[in-house]
Amino acid sequence: MAGNSIGQLFRVTTFGESHGVAIGGVIDGCPPGIELSEAHIQAQLDRRRPGQSRYTTARREADQIRILSGVFEGKTTGTPIGVLIENTDQRSRDYSDIQDTYRPGHADYTYDAKYGFRDYRGGGRSSARETAIRVAAGAIAMQVLAGLGVSVRGAMVQMGDINAEQFDWEQVNQNAFFFADSRKLDLLDESIRQLKKSGDSIGARIRVEAHGVPAGWGEPVFDRLDADLAHSLMSINAVKAVAIGDGFAVVEQRGSEHRDEMDASGFLSNHAGGVLGGISSGQPVIAEIALKPTSSITIPGRSIRRDGSECEVVTKGRHDPCVGIRAVPIAEAMLAITLLDHYLRHRGQNSVLTANGQVPTAE
Amino acid sequence: MAGNSIGQLFRVTTFGESHGVAIGGVIDGCPPGIELSEAHIQAQLDRRRPGQSRYTTARREADQIRILSGVFEGKTTGTPIGVLIENTDQRSRDYSDIQDTYRPGHADYTYDAKYGFRDYRGGGRSSARETAIRVAAGAIAMQVLAGLGVSVRGAMVQMGDINAEQFDWEQVNQNAFFFADSRKLDLLDESIRQLKKSGDSIGARIRVEAHGVPAGWGEPVFDRLDADLAHSLMSINAVKAVAIGDGFAVVEQRGSEHRDEMDASGFLSNHAGGVLGGISSGQPVIAEIALKPTSSITIPGRSIRRDGSECEVVTKGRHDPCVGIRAVPIAEAMLAITLLDHYLRHRGQNSVLTANGQVPTAE
Amino acid sequence: MAGNSIGQLFRVTTFGESHGVAIGGVIDGCPPGIELSEAHIQAQLDRRRPGQSRYTTARREADQIRILSGVFEGKTTGTPIGVLIENTDQRSRDYSDIQDTYRPGHADYTYDAKYGFRDYRGGGRSSARETAIRVAAGAIAMQVLAGLGVSVRGAMVQMGDINAEQFDWEQVNQNAFFFADSRKLDLLDESIRQLKKSGDSIGARIRVEAHGVPAGWGEPVFDRLDADLAHSLMSINAVKAVAIGDGFAVVEQRGSEHRDEMDASGFLSNHAGGVLGGISSGQPVIAEIALKPTSSITIPGRSIRRDGSECEVVTKGRHDPCVGIRAVPIAEAMLAITLLDHYLRHRGQNSVLTANGQVPTAE
Amino acid sequence: MAGNSIGQLFRVTTFGESHGVAIGGVIDGCPPGIELSEAHIQAQLDRRRPGQSRYTTARREADQIRILSGVFEGKTTGTPIGVLIENTDQRSRDYSDIQDTYRPGHADYTYDAKYGFRDYRGGGRSSARETAIRVAAGAIAMQVLAGLGVSVRGAMVQMGDINAEQFDWEQVNQNAFFFADSRKLDLLDESIRQLKKSGDSIGARIRVEAHGVPAGWGEPVFDRLDADLAHSLMSINAVKAVAIGDGFAVVEQRGSEHRDEMDASGFLSNHAGGVLGGISSGQPVIAEIALKPTSSITIPGRSIRRDGSECEVVTKGRHDPCVGIRAVPIAEAMLAITLLDHYLRHRGQNSVLTANGQVPTAE
Repeated sequence: MAGNSIGQLFRVTTFGESHGVAIGGVIDGCPPGIELSEAHIQAQLDRRRPGQSRYTTARREADQIRILSGVFEGKTTGTPIGVLIENTDQRSRDYSDIQDTYRPGHADYTYDAKYGFRDYRGGGRSSARETAIRVAAGAIAMQVLAGLGVSVRGAMVQMGDINAEQFDWEQVNQNAFFFADSRKLDLLDESIRQLKKSGDSIGARIRVEAHGVPAGWGEPVFDRLDADLAHSLMSINAVKAVAIGDGFAVVEQRGSEHRDEMDASGFLSNHAGGVLGGISSGQPVIAEIALKPTSSITIPGRSIRRDGSECEVVTKGRHDPCVGIRAVPIAEAMLAITLLDHYLRHRGQNSVLTANGQVPTAE
Repeated sequence: MAGNSIGQLFRVTTFGESHGVAIGGVIDGCPPGIELSEAHIQAQLDRRRPGQSRYTTARREADQIRILSGVFEGKTTGTPIGVLIENTDQRSRDYSDIQDTYRPGHADYTYDAKYGFRDYRGGGRSSARETAIRVAAGAIAMQVLAGLGVSVRGAMVQMGDINAEQFDWEQVNQNAFFFADSRKLDLLDESIRQLKKSGDSIGARIRVEAHGVPAGWGEPVFDRLDADLAHSLMSINAVKAVAIGDGFAVVEQRGSEHRDEMDASGFLSNHAGGVLGGISSGQPVIAEIALKPTSSITIPGRSIRRDGSECEVVTKGRHDPCVGIRAVPIAEAMLAITLLDHYLRHRGQNSVLTANGQVPTAE
Repeated sequence: MAGNSIGQLFRVTTFGESHGVAIGGVIDGCPPGIELSEAHIQAQLDRRRPGQSRYTTARREADQIRILSGVFEGKTTGTPIGVLIENTDQRSRDYSDIQDTYRPGHADYTYDAKYGFRDYRGGGRSSARETAIRVAAGAIAMQVLAGLGVSVRGAMVQMGDINAEQFDWEQVNQNAFFFADSRKLDLLDESIRQLKKSGDSIGARIRVEAHGVPAGWGEPVFDRLDADLAHSLMSINAVKAVAIGDGFAVVEQRGSEHRDEMDASGFLSNHAGGVLGGISSGQPVIAEIALKPTSSITIPGRSIRRDGSECEVVTKGRHDPCVGIRAVPIAEAMLAITLLDHYLRHRGQNSVLTANGQVPTAE
Repeated sequence: MAGNSIGQLFRVTTFGESHGVAIGGVIDGCPPGIELSEAHIQAQLDRRRPGQSRYTTARREADQIRILSGVFEGKTTGTPIGVLIENTDQRSRDYSDIQDTYRPGHADYTYDAKYGFRDYRGGGRSSARETAIRVAAGAIAMQVLAGLGVSVRGAMVQMGDINAEQFDWEQVNQNAFFFADSRKLDLLDESIRQLKKSGDSIGARIRVEAHGVPAGWGEPVFDRLDADLAHSLMSINAVKAVAIGDGFAVVEQRGSEHRDEMDASGFLSNHAGGVLGGISSGQPVIAEIALKPTSSITIPGRSIRRDGSECEVVTKGRHDPCVGIRAVPIAEAMLAITLLDHYLRHRGQNSVLTANGQVPTAE
């Protein structure tokens, strides 16, 4: 595989560069009979669209999704779902001066080393914009999961040194930061203003959760649910770390503290974050990711040109001081995509159905 | 795939339960012409073998590796390499009393939920012992990587609240903890003694590095090198978090601090940990993992039986107070396996590089 | 994988139903730096377009290909190539009367059994029209192969009981049948007229060849080149058999006749069809496929409705009396796609060859 | 993947050369709870073992199978099943004189071209002996399929110009040829004697069938059941063609003859061979394969040495005049393996279960 697909039974393949003609994808393996429309998907896309908030990129991205196949009379057919978003904001001129320089912190250098040249227009495949298709695929996965009683949600829980201390999920979709603690909004506002003024950026920590996941999803030994989550979350641009449950805090925990005991009512804690031995335990699946600060800043940085000569780079154009704000719907999407893939694989593997003798025709 | 294979061009498939007849694996995709012998592999296995240290499990595991195929006259043939370790330490009687209880923190509950029953003998596939085959596969990968100028190394950098403050890689293989700071060995000793006395366990943080990796390995968008590393490292039993480069520290970093600038001499820092935009940058690849404390402790814990009734569980038998100590060679192995897989995939994908001269050493 | 992708390093994923909004695909793994334009692909598509010949379906299919990504300044970038063909001929009304009946010989019954319902509009995913994307992907593969000195060609060699006795490849693209023996064209004409009059259809045999393939492509034991060719050719709608080299004739051959001997000038025969032990031998790769006669005929057939009651089915609308005529470019495309995938995999696997100088041209 | 694995959810990976230490494999994805023992597998292996018949190779191959994992208390656990056969007949000296020559019709030349050298001992991975593991995996698949009401059987239906005219499946396992027409046994005997005397070999045609396969298995568009069958059958050494249902006979059929009509009692014919539109139709799945005559014959053949100089090659040692005789159990095994993989994939894909709201815990 050339790296542009994810998943085995629920499989997402994307294509498109941020400043190319269009971005799109194929979502393969969606079970038939699920209600789906462009509106379902557009709702998720609009959550990530810049311009709805004064804190994110001002480039106007319409992101109107078209469903090209796989849906008939409002329901999925079980055949691949092709989706497309035509690129309406293509200001290549914003980027022409960087054609021969490597912007520090960007993938320019590594792309050139890999491919021998690079498409310099706005980050190409490593740009965050390609993720619109992930969000679309995630919206489809969420529709299927909803029918299984599984829901997914995410929030930003830390920006720079500002932490959410009071978790209120009702607040998350009420503010432009997807922040879980409404008491800190003014602090966030102020921080963003300072960053725009100084031309710098800041990192973020995001938390995603899945509720209603029954025990049993996951495939030891290598395709464990947590390993696949780590993979799909780390595949999000700018992510530098993934934690399940208590994450790095487990380093200082004792076994007597960490283990999740059980009584007749069920589990008594969830340090494991809903995954035990690589399989879902029936508890909420909890993960956190760390997003690095955007490297597209106006503060000059030292770099080199293709010919190796030193230069100074300043990124123009309008960019995000905090990438993390936009990553919340993307992280939710990746969680949904990975969970659905595991649900389908779990169903394929397990012989409970063979116990009943008669295999239903359409089973 | 049923979850017991990892990698695409360099592919490792394992089988075997810790208390079954044997554990083994198939390593497929190793290029031909590489020097390989059982001694090469045994050397790596011996690093992880308990009994060489008074801190790890006293169960005597011989772990004698046999190579069954894929090697002829001391060199790999390019055909699959079958490896086998017959199980010599099979004390099922250590486990018979837990046949119908769920040990808290173990995968018993989730395995039962998934499969409808479980093989209660000693953890089965979720036991750390299965990882001997991973270490064997890693040893093979390291042989190939060595020929490409790539080396891999790992160390424990934190156990509980004891941190390595002075990194000395020469020390790592001189002590039983694989610890990077020899000044802290007495503290570690004391901590372990306390834990054995109290019957508890503690977590650990491990760091792995790869040197000599040229720029260009990795496949955006989903099979990024960092995403695949996250997957293979998270697939190690007891791992709850994976970080690349500065990991969670990036949350509080500014863009002006985080970005790795360049001048004519190359990169000036390595906050990215050697991976940028999903592709290796030519800098050392650096990752850290968090291992949870073992749940096999002698302090009683609350749990339930298969029939749902409450009970108390005490794990007998001899176990590790710190799993992290044994995980260092396993983490090195997973890093090596993933890097080799990416090297082979990178070579398959890129034809331009063979034409323009600017080919990195390892192409 | 949900079945809509083929290939490992050169990977093609398609989507779209014949009477949906659009058909399209993602071609992933095309090496960078290859010259490619919509014109290149359109040229191949036009060879299969009905309407250019009075022998094929009169439905007007424009089949105008759009490249949405993966190409920059006339060359491939190495990122996925998204392609799209908007459906301009959507006459659903041709099919409405068959909504609840199973057309004999069509996939209606099996689709319903599998999915619980079916999209009745014109065959959906099992229609031959979806293959336009395969032809597009094949055109891309052919561009890459051309740079490696490999060419692909196909011809119809039998229609019903009319056999090509004299092979003239120059003739193949000069007649609407892609037939290799121009002396039989009148017979073919007459046969088609008879079939249109009687409302029946006929089968065909197609031959595809690849020239310039060096020795060494193919991955024993399961992903042999011939096994993958059998897979990709059998995946073409209406194909019921695949033969490599002498095919079924080998059953009556002696070993002394069949084996391809060698002398200093090279091989002295090619009974093997260019594949030996699953690996290309350096000789032309030769395969033949059998296409069944179209089941969309106007002669009434006995069938049942969804509720099980018996009925008679007559297919209206305009259809092909011989599907084989259109399958030639599709078979060439599948051969090209599979060969390129194997070339990339071969390059990824073999490091010895880059060292010993004896590297075939196409390495 | 490096080519030594087949299947997606039911996945078989093999290793081992015919003259190496052992051959073995990993069968991953077998559902748990299936009765399995070494005896089950040995029964299938014994059917293919030479020495039980005076017509096949006299090399004594014990082929004693060991199950190393994945079975507990007589039932599969759902974890990978490792199997091993130690090689007891290793007469390398039979082959030493061919170390530097290419035996015509063998894979020697292609292996050398691919890998830069070859393991000359007896065919290595391209030898038919490696297929013992396929037969073992097939035996496991057959156990699972039996529980689903699916049975698999095969027979030789043609050897050279001797055809089975009367099909009697009861006869197939009563003679050493697996031949379906007992009236021709004397002719077969005589033919074999002549071939041994002349030192030559002959080809064969084998037929395999699966009964009880319900409608609905198969994944359009590329992973169609027939395409995957073509792949797995063509992966058998010496196979040069695969046909489904009427195979090449469809070329001369009319649509009115070929289509399988239906009435209230079901299908009225089975020209399709049980697969329609890539999905099983509920009718018996029928396939035939063509096996080329063995190239290991004592009649001298012209060839070249590694240095390109011409030479004559005579194969010594004892070999099969008709490989087809041994291929019957192998073809049955491949059919079973592919069917089971499709059954598991079909179950994973289909949402009938989502209709009932509540997903069972272990589902």
